[in-house]
Amino acid sequence: MTPKRDDDRTGRAQGGVSRRGLFGAVGVTAIAGASGVAGWGVAHAQEDKPSTTALRYPFHGEHQAGIVTPAQDRLHFAAFDVTTDSRDALVELLRAWTDAAAAMTAGELVGAGSPLPYDAPPDDTGEALGLDTAGLTITIGFGPSLFEKDGVDRFGLRDRQPRELRRLPHFPADNLDEARSDGDLCVQACANDPQVAVHAIRNLARIGFGTVAMRWAQLGFGRTSSTSTAQATPRNLFGFKDGTSNLKAEEPEDLADFVWVQEADDPAASWLTGGSYLVARRISMRIETWDRTSLREQETLIGRDRVDGAPLSGGTEFSEPDFALAGRDGPIIPMDSHVRLAHPTHNNGTKMLRRGYNFTDGADALGRLDAGLFFIAFVREPQSRYVPLQTTLSRDDALMEYLEHTGSGLWAIPPGATEGTYLGQSLFA
Amino acid sequence: MTPKRDDDRTGRAQGGVSRRGLFGAVGVTAIAGASGVAGWGVAHAQEDKPSTTALRYPFHGEHQAGIVTPAQDRLHFAAFDVTTDSRDALVELLRAWTDAAAAMTAGELVGAGSPLPYDAPPDDTGEALGLDTAGLTITIGFGPSLFEKDGVDRFGLRDRQPRELRRLPHFPADNLDEARSDGDLCVQACANDPQVAVHAIRNLARIGFGTVAMRWAQLGFGRTSSTSTAQATPRNLFGFKDGTSNLKAEEPEDLADFVWVQEADDPAASWLTGGSYLVARRISMRIETWDRTSLREQETLIGRDRVDGAPLSGGTEFSEPDFALAGRDGPIIPMDSHVRLAHPTHNNGTKMLRRGYNFTDGADALGRLDAGLFFIAFVREPQSRYVPLQTTLSRDDALMEYLEHTGSGLWAIPPGATEGTYLGQSLFA
Repeated sequence: MTPKRDDDRTGRAQGGVSRRGLFGAVGVTAIAGASGVAGWGVAHAQEDKPSTTALRYPFHGEHQAGIVTPAQDRLHFAAFDVTTDSRDALVELLRAWTDAAAAMTAGELVGAGSPLPYDAPPDDTGEALGLDTAGLTITIGFGPSLFEKDGVDRFGLRDRQPRELRRLPHFPADNLDEARSDGDLCVQACANDPQVAVHAIRNLARIGFGTVAMRWAQLGFGRTSSTSTAQATPRNLFGFKDGTSNLKAEEPEDLADFVWVQEADDPAASWLTGGSYLVARRISMRIETWDRTSLREQETLIGRDRVDGAPLSGGTEFSEPDFALAGRDGPIIPMDSHVRLAHPTHNNGTKMLRRGYNFTDGADALGRLDAGLFFIAFVREPQSRYVPLQTTLSRDDALMEYLEHTGSGLWAIPPGATEGTYLGQSLFA
Repeated sequence: MTPKRDDDRTGRAQGGVSRRGLFGAVGVTAIAGASGVAGWGVAHAQEDKPSTTALRYPFHGEHQAGIVTPAQDRLHFAAFDVTTDSRDALVELLRAWTDAAAAMTAGELVGAGSPLPYDAPPDDTGEALGLDTAGLTITIGFGPSLFEKDGVDRFGLRDRQPRELRRLPHFPADNLDEARSDGDLCVQACANDPQVAVHAIRNLARIGFGTVAMRWAQLGFGRTSSTSTAQATPRNLFGFKDGTSNLKAEEPEDLADFVWVQEADDPAASWLTGGSYLVARRISMRIETWDRTSLREQETLIGRDRVDGAPLSGGTEFSEPDFALAGRDGPIIPMDSHVRLAHPTHNNGTKMLRRGYNFTDGADALGRLDAGLFFIAFVREPQSRYVPLQTTLSRDDALMEYLEHTGSGLWAIPPGATEGTYLGQSLFA
């Protein structure tokens, strides 16, 4: 009933075409397809591919990839709810996701190594065949509801829930959509080709069928932060450079202080050592209103020059703002400007590794662009450091007049997997 | 009340920072900003940019760009309704859109040449500053409702409505969302960087404030057709190569037959000579169902091999299908397969220039991927050639079990503008 593809091809060849003939002229892709171990990056000879698509980042390591990895250009982010009560099924899912993530980030097909089935669905959905890895990273996290939901210890994990992993509070002016918030699991797929990122999320969703259901998803483009000093600072949809003072991969001491969870942070959650927390906020921008605002007002709200990104106190993009410098009416960088309120000196020294993306989800019912910034930050202490900072911004930042937070989530990001282990193994061990 | 930016900078410099000091260290972008004639492609020295972003296509010409232009990787498509009754205001809009489109596709800021205002909103929204043109093309079209709506000759254009420009009919199994269909005007922005395409639509929408309102919009990625023999055939979200037999820029005779409107086609609409028609169909795919279908079934539905794209009758991707070749149960390429029903030999020789994109718009309420193919085709005769073909597919194509058409639109695409004219000038002249 389930002959191998080879047998069947022989059958098909009864029509007068040999399998070798079918495959002979199309080169490497066909050979890879026949052997069932196709890599993507094999068949785009004459294509005018962007050079960034050739990038390949290691999946295994002390930390998960996709955090200090130089921010790729495209995002597909998905939140899932676990639909099974079985701890074993959850562990099996994480094992399967780890294997698939390792394969896809290496440019291999999901299920590589198995013969291509013919009377069964293919293991890989196929739309990335022939595409490069495009710097794909896949980063997986655990939400608070995985540890306890409605008072129920669903998977025997309650005792291991980290102190810092609690649902984010309601911030002033939040207008959250439940259907765009939270979730038992999250997956961040980043790549320089959106088809590669979408392929990754789709295949993980497919593997999870019967165990998880996608709760919501967000696509993003035009990364709004740099995570490496080798990257130029990108612009958000307000037209301003964003993330000038972001933490960078080249700052290991700050990363240890502000990104990576340390052994001593939380004895009950030592499984998270070497991991982090992912904060996500879907921030809608009132684009049309902003676009009718004067350049003076825009720069006053941000506290920076729009063209070059320098603080209004002068210098260049990377000059430290001089918050004391006087202008005609008070400080030249206003008290309620974004750059002042978000700056470490006004937040007990807090720095963040931000890794957000611009988004545009079409138009709303009134014909306005449904667009904004999908904020992602990796932080060591979400409750004690991120929450106070966002509370200040939500309450006092003059820019909030043009923003609306419409989605929210917090997940613990376990450390990286080594060969033979699965993501999150330290939690279940 | 509205001092030039220069004056104000002098004011700001009272804080101790000279304007030259502000700008001195940041190089070309700053200089461009100061002179008000910034190009985008000037300030990304150390960035790891994809090579395709350096592409720049001429805006002016016999035909509009974005039709036979080699299909770029990303799409932002928007449909607008005209909210004014004034023909003059409509003409002014088209003039302003033409100028802005010419500027943006040349890598210039909208409003380039004017001094940067400081107490007024900037002409350009800014998020493309520092980005390359990325092969941006902007293609503008006129819907049937622009010529007559609810029996009203809104702009004195009724007599010039082309015979072929009528709302597409209801096809079998259509499940159209009004909010994703039709519109007085359409704009197709294509680029190899989504931020550049989004910037283009946003700035046109901004220019149109008070004259047009965005009716709906669609983002796309991973072009699903090649329009040049220099491009490899991409894959759709079913994992199959799509557009193998698409019309190509290198086939001028077929383009004259099937894409470009000819002088003699419609005497009342000679203004459209050298133009075309754009058919758009938002085709949702039942991804989860498809992904649980055997490879055999998938290939039988499509009529092609999934890995290499060859017809089931054998050969390579570009081999002509042999529809007569017998298999074990009837023709090896089934009677209701997509490749058979869509093939020119079964449609009076009709060929199309397709230029569609994959889309993923997050997840629906049931946790399924809201994804599919945003079909775009440029055709010379939509009613007499496209409509019969789509009727056949909608009625008989076995693939329809996995598809749902959720949006639809038809627009006349006027010929290209020459220097000093505006898009659509032949219609209003």
